[in-house]
Amino acid sequence: MSPIATSNGQDGHSNGLDRKPNVPQKDGTAAEKEQLVLNTIRCLAADLCQEFKGGHPGTVMGAAAIGVALWRHVMRYNPANPSWFGRDRFVLSVGHACLLQYLMLHFSGYEGWTLDEIRKYHSPSTEHMAAGHPEIEYPGIEASTGPLGQGIANAVGMAMAGKQIGARFNKDGYPVVDGKIWAMTGDGCLQEGVGQEACSIAGHLGLDNLVLIYDNNRVTVDGSIDMCFTDDTSAKLRAMGWEVIEVYDGSNDIAGIVAALELAKHTKGKPTLVNIRTIIGIGSQKQNTGSVHGAALGPDDVAHVKKQLGFNTADKFTVGKEVYDFFGECGARGKTIEDEYNGMMADYAKKFPEDFKELQRRQAGKLREGWESSVPSKDKLPQDAVPTRKASGIMVQALVPADETFVSGSADLMESTFVNFKGQVQFQNPASGLGDYTGRQMMWGIREFAMVACGNGMAAYQKGMFIPIMSTFFMFWLYAAPAARMAALQRLRIIGIATHDGLGLGEDGPTHQPVSLANFYRGLPNQNFIRPADAEEVVGAWMLALSEQEASHPSLLSLSRQAVPLLEGSDRTKVAKGAYIIYGGDVEPNLTLVSTGCEVYRAVEVAKAIGGNVRVVSMPSQRHFDLQSKEYRRSVLPTTKSLVVAIEAWGSLSWPRYAHAGCHMHTFGLSAPQDVLYKHFGFGADNLAKVIKQFKEEQKGGLPGVGEFAELLNGHMMDGRHYAGKLDMNGNE
Amino acid sequence: MSPIATSNGQDGHSNGLDRKPNVPQKDGTAAEKEQLVLNTIRCLAADLCQEFKGGHPGTVMGAAAIGVALWRHVMRYNPANPSWFGRDRFVLSVGHACLLQYLMLHFSGYEGWTLDEIRKYHSPSTEHMAAGHPEIEYPGIEASTGPLGQGIANAVGMAMAGKQIGARFNKDGYPVVDGKIWAMTGDGCLQEGVGQEACSIAGHLGLDNLVLIYDNNRVTVDGSIDMCFTDDTSAKLRAMGWEVIEVYDGSNDIAGIVAALELAKHTKGKPTLVNIRTIIGIGSQKQNTGSVHGAALGPDDVAHVKKQLGFNTADKFTVGKEVYDFFGECGARGKTIEDEYNGMMADYAKKFPEDFKELQRRQAGKLREGWESSVPSKDKLPQDAVPTRKASGIMVQALVPADETFVSGSADLMESTFVNFKGQVQFQNPASGLGDYTGRQMMWGIREFAMVACGNGMAAYQKGMFIPIMSTFFMFWLYAAPAARMAALQRLRIIGIATHDGLGLGEDGPTHQPVSLANFYRGLPNQNFIRPADAEEVVGAWMLALSEQEASHPSLLSLSRQAVPLLEGSDRTKVAKGAYIIYGGDVEPNLTLVSTGCEVYRAVEVAKAIGGNVRVVSMPSQRHFDLQSKEYRRSVLPTTKSLVVAIEAWGSLSWPRYAHAGCHMHTFGLSAPQDVLYKHFGFGADNLAKVIKQFKEEQKGGLPGVGEFAELLNGHMMDGRHYAGKLDMNGNE
Repeated sequence: MSPIATSNGQDGHSNGLDRKPNVPQKDGTAAEKEQLVLNTIRCLAADLCQEFKGGHPGTVMGAAAIGVALWRHVMRYNPANPSWFGRDRFVLSVGHACLLQYLMLHFSGYEGWTLDEIRKYHSPSTEHMAAGHPEIEYPGIEASTGPLGQGIANAVGMAMAGKQIGARFNKDGYPVVDGKIWAMTGDGCLQEGVGQEACSIAGHLGLDNLVLIYDNNRVTVDGSIDMCFTDDTSAKLRAMGWEVIEVYDGSNDIAGIVAALELAKHTKGKPTLVNIRTIIGIGSQKQNTGSVHGAALGPDDVAHVKKQLGFNTADKFTVGKEVYDFFGECGARGKTIEDEYNGMMADYAKKFPEDFKELQRRQAGKLREGWESSVPSKDKLPQDAVPTRKASGIMVQALVPADETFVSGSADLMESTFVNFKGQVQFQNPASGLGDYTGRQMMWGIREFAMVACGNGMAAYQKGMFIPIMSTFFMFWLYAAPAARMAALQRLRIIGIATHDGLGLGEDGPTHQPVSLANFYRGLPNQNFIRPADAEEVVGAWMLALSEQEASHPSLLSLSRQAVPLLEGSDRTKVAKGAYIIYGGDVEPNLTLVSTGCEVYRAVEVAKAIGGNVRVVSMPSQRHFDLQSKEYRRSVLPTTKSLVVAIEAWGSLSWPRYAHAGCHMHTFGLSAPQDVLYKHFGFGADNLAKVIKQFKEEQKGGLPGVGEFAELLNGHMMDGRHYAGKLDMNGNE
Repeated sequence: MSPIATSNGQDGHSNGLDRKPNVPQKDGTAAEKEQLVLNTIRCLAADLCQEFKGGHPGTVMGAAAIGVALWRHVMRYNPANPSWFGRDRFVLSVGHACLLQYLMLHFSGYEGWTLDEIRKYHSPSTEHMAAGHPEIEYPGIEASTGPLGQGIANAVGMAMAGKQIGARFNKDGYPVVDGKIWAMTGDGCLQEGVGQEACSIAGHLGLDNLVLIYDNNRVTVDGSIDMCFTDDTSAKLRAMGWEVIEVYDGSNDIAGIVAALELAKHTKGKPTLVNIRTIIGIGSQKQNTGSVHGAALGPDDVAHVKKQLGFNTADKFTVGKEVYDFFGECGARGKTIEDEYNGMMADYAKKFPEDFKELQRRQAGKLREGWESSVPSKDKLPQDAVPTRKASGIMVQALVPADETFVSGSADLMESTFVNFKGQVQFQNPASGLGDYTGRQMMWGIREFAMVACGNGMAAYQKGMFIPIMSTFFMFWLYAAPAARMAALQRLRIIGIATHDGLGLGEDGPTHQPVSLANFYRGLPNQNFIRPADAEEVVGAWMLALSEQEASHPSLLSLSRQAVPLLEGSDRTKVAKGAYIIYGGDVEPNLTLVSTGCEVYRAVEVAKAIGGNVRVVSMPSQRHFDLQSKEYRRSVLPTTKSLVVAIEAWGSLSWPRYAHAGCHMHTFGLSAPQDVLYKHFGFGADNLAKVIKQFKEEQKGGLPGVGEFAELLNGHMMDGRHYAGKLDMNGNE
């Protein structure tokens, strides 16, 4: 066993680069068996990538000993029941090394992970578990990873979830949750900002149930990290409040790694980084270079690897019986610990029936019985104008205090986004004196990306057990967008609060005004993007986001900074339809205005100003409208019978699907009060009425066809350039 | 003068919280003058925010002494010529503190920055310089900031630009560039991932022309940072290779700050963090709390501030003559140093005429004369199928080696994105032995967001002097999106290379496949998003991005991983039209297929399979098509005469503007080889021909109207839910 140190990780730098994988001496010792296991994994990695000439062999070969240490020796899990609640959780932040995890799941006996299945890695099949990056749908995979840095944040979120559940449900002698969260990172995840944000959060919160294993191979796609990354990572994480343990020979020294991980298990009050020096592609002719990172080794090098490791170059996918024997006890051990756990929980159920019942509800991902009844009816809502962000605060207040499923927080805008709730306790390291781990108010700091990536981890800890409510200005949901996308991809229910959602942000100016960001969220598969028109629709938006049917969809609520009136025609029950008639529904319209959010009340003003049979449609969710029957859609938006004009103070990208013309933004905003800006950009009711009337007259009763969408506003300029939309308005140059 | 230390910044933590601003003793000393200046700034901040009841007074009051130290004592600039090339540059990463910068620009004598102009801060006017965050359009503002963390990266980019120009043009005794880049950060920028990525890059590169000033007030919007941020920032930045200097009383001790900044000027081989302990809102009743961060103080507190600071509570916007006297010499000093510089450069012009001529070209932002002639003609392009990313590499090779305007780099995917070029030298700290500061190959590391935010800084250093080419997989342009947006907002010409742009990415799977990201870039004002169909269109895309007309627009080129054939009808000169007929243009079509990028050749196959008068339109840029005349657009896409069907293996959000129906993705992708995926999701030529023919027949010669866009693919499911688009296909349930 090699030294474990806490000195500067860069010591390891010059260390071990000439190291060769050990060829098993046939002396029947444990050491022989271990080497055979490591070398078997390395040869399998070489064969699996060579089979379909692609994939990432290098890290699998280099980090084999880490995998063995975790699954064979250190982690608590039951392969027969991958979703056993009491398990440790593992997140492979370095997702491209998924073959290592697949092989460990195979050897430790997880159902489905046969060698045949793993051999479909990079195969032409579309029906396989061995995806190019780990996917949460499959046994033993806790989170889909690959986009670097986010896996660290997912693990931090799981550690927060574990601490929160433990603080809530553990009793003296009844550790309902005392498992660890293990995450494996490479150099890349530690360069990405989101990884560093997450490390800073974990250090601040003192999450001692979190162990981050750094596969420190110092090589990325482009080659040695000396070209771009010379941080002293150990010192940096210490400065973020972490314990750091280092292992110098991570390529072969399983015992050394096990000792380090066991030591990490016992760190108190801090998360632990285990910085393990490894050699990428060890055994390959190209070991320790970028060329073993993301490509098959090629037949010659595969042969070289096998020779090096004492394998027959002619054989492929060789796994000796000794290797299976070596992992043989994983299943029995897993069964034993789960049985013990279940015995304890049976006792717990008797002793603490109320807590047990609540725990079961949480584990089942059910919301509190009858939560709908605590939602205020329309007549109980503020009857005067309020910002929709404030109306959302009423829902937070109605839902969050009574149901511990919810954790609610902000990236340093708690009071602007109205995610505070009565009796809140901050989720904090108890040592801070500011709160404790029972807290459900999350102080994320100015870290939007990590907030949402950690939220994904909480949501993935046990599906439905937590619904993280996360908030910031809509503009900063662009910082968080890569994590929001991963929530949609993994079908995790998180609820995003996006306030100050346009020109209404006002004086802070164009850097903070999202004039076109909705396009990203509207186009994202699985994503709900809901922009309610008033307090009543805010209630409907929350009820939709929390409905059974949306249990597998993240929702983002786009909310106003400024006050908007409670609209006579608004109806919470119709938000789920995506769009509905909010004004002038009693007759066939000769003009329909469709609008969203804080622009809807302006559309109603415009309709009144124009007069005649003008209908106004509120469209809080394009996605949900698209899901309605043709009959319903036609009944709301009669595009084949009369003109439909969209009004939304954002870009027009998504509107030609629904309207013949639109009043939209084609430039960035400005710094001025919101009412001034709406007027300046042409969204004053008078001007809207004028341009829409003019457009209608110009159509002479006809309906513009596809390809003729008319842009009615902003001098028809697009980023300062003449915008052809104008030409469609009056049919000539 | 208070101690300057290099010990742990958290020492400052308990330090100075009870500190009061000094009231000037009327003893005519320099100390008196300085206090009067500081207190004048604080009262102005209080008055300016109170005037229109909004804004950010706290940091202005707390960091006043930092502003005075910089503009009065330390920085090299000429207020009479804000764009003097030899100047130091200042970036206010903590953009909400813009009033401090505005006031410093006023006192040091920058044109336009009158007190009347500054009094328009948060006013109803839309015509003013005093925006809610600093805007690059105005004198003395080097970059638009506000979205936190990015300003640090902008400054790092400017420091890189300065090093590069210095290494290229400085001669013994002729320091063409030896200025410093000064940036001011708060707690927020240091929590944001992009700030940390940028600090890591700066430390790695040893940018000793960069000084980051940390306004360490330990308070954010939500209150004390103890709630969310307990990093030891000084230790963290040391671990990233920075020099750190600390100042304990940043509220009053101008001399101490000046001494620290002068010391920082002389750091060699490292960037310097000057960690300055300040008190937010000093002088206010609410000093050192979140409530002075982002709101006016209110009349009582404004009065309190004035009493505290020895001002008459009845007076507003008071600036004594002594204050102007105090800054009086800034103008003369600026003139002197610019005159000296110009004298030196006159000499330089004589001694080094070639270098001078080249420098002038670069300063004017002109590309090398006749660069177009080095672009290969279509017959010189690979005639067999190549990936468009590889074709782009041909353009990089044709343009970059010969013109030092270009710097080219990648976030660790140099060889996948083909941004390498002949004779490249890495931009590196010479001490690294890997390159030097003349290098133009940028090794950004796995830091997409900082890559682009630093690129913005290089582009802003002197508009047009640098055109940064930055590359990663398209998916990771989502990580970089907040910086790409700032490039568009600031009209900075950067060129983004986005490869592996969809299903063609293949085996790496859905986490890496951008199926809907284009919506963000297509909807972003000022942004060019170009998806070329083949090598010929790649040439056209580059020529468009580099054309005069696009000098104020960033461009993102969306390129394929997989090979696509060189199309007979492709035409580089028509890329600038946004869309054009690439197949079947000789007759009136009875069906038109419109497609982009690596799907275009499939559309041509489909057209041939369907037969008859089928036209194929390639639409590399929706934006540029929208800018064409109605006549041109109708001549290409005859939507009012015959069916138009879009084919793009991305989401359909933007397509109803151009087509009656579309073949698109409505779910995330899968992990499999690209040809398998195209087939699996219905994009095989046979299937496309089948569903399009069927659709055409169902229309019986009619044209679907607005609101009837038909989704022809993916089983008409949207994220696993039945998609109503199907219903439009055959007109009934």
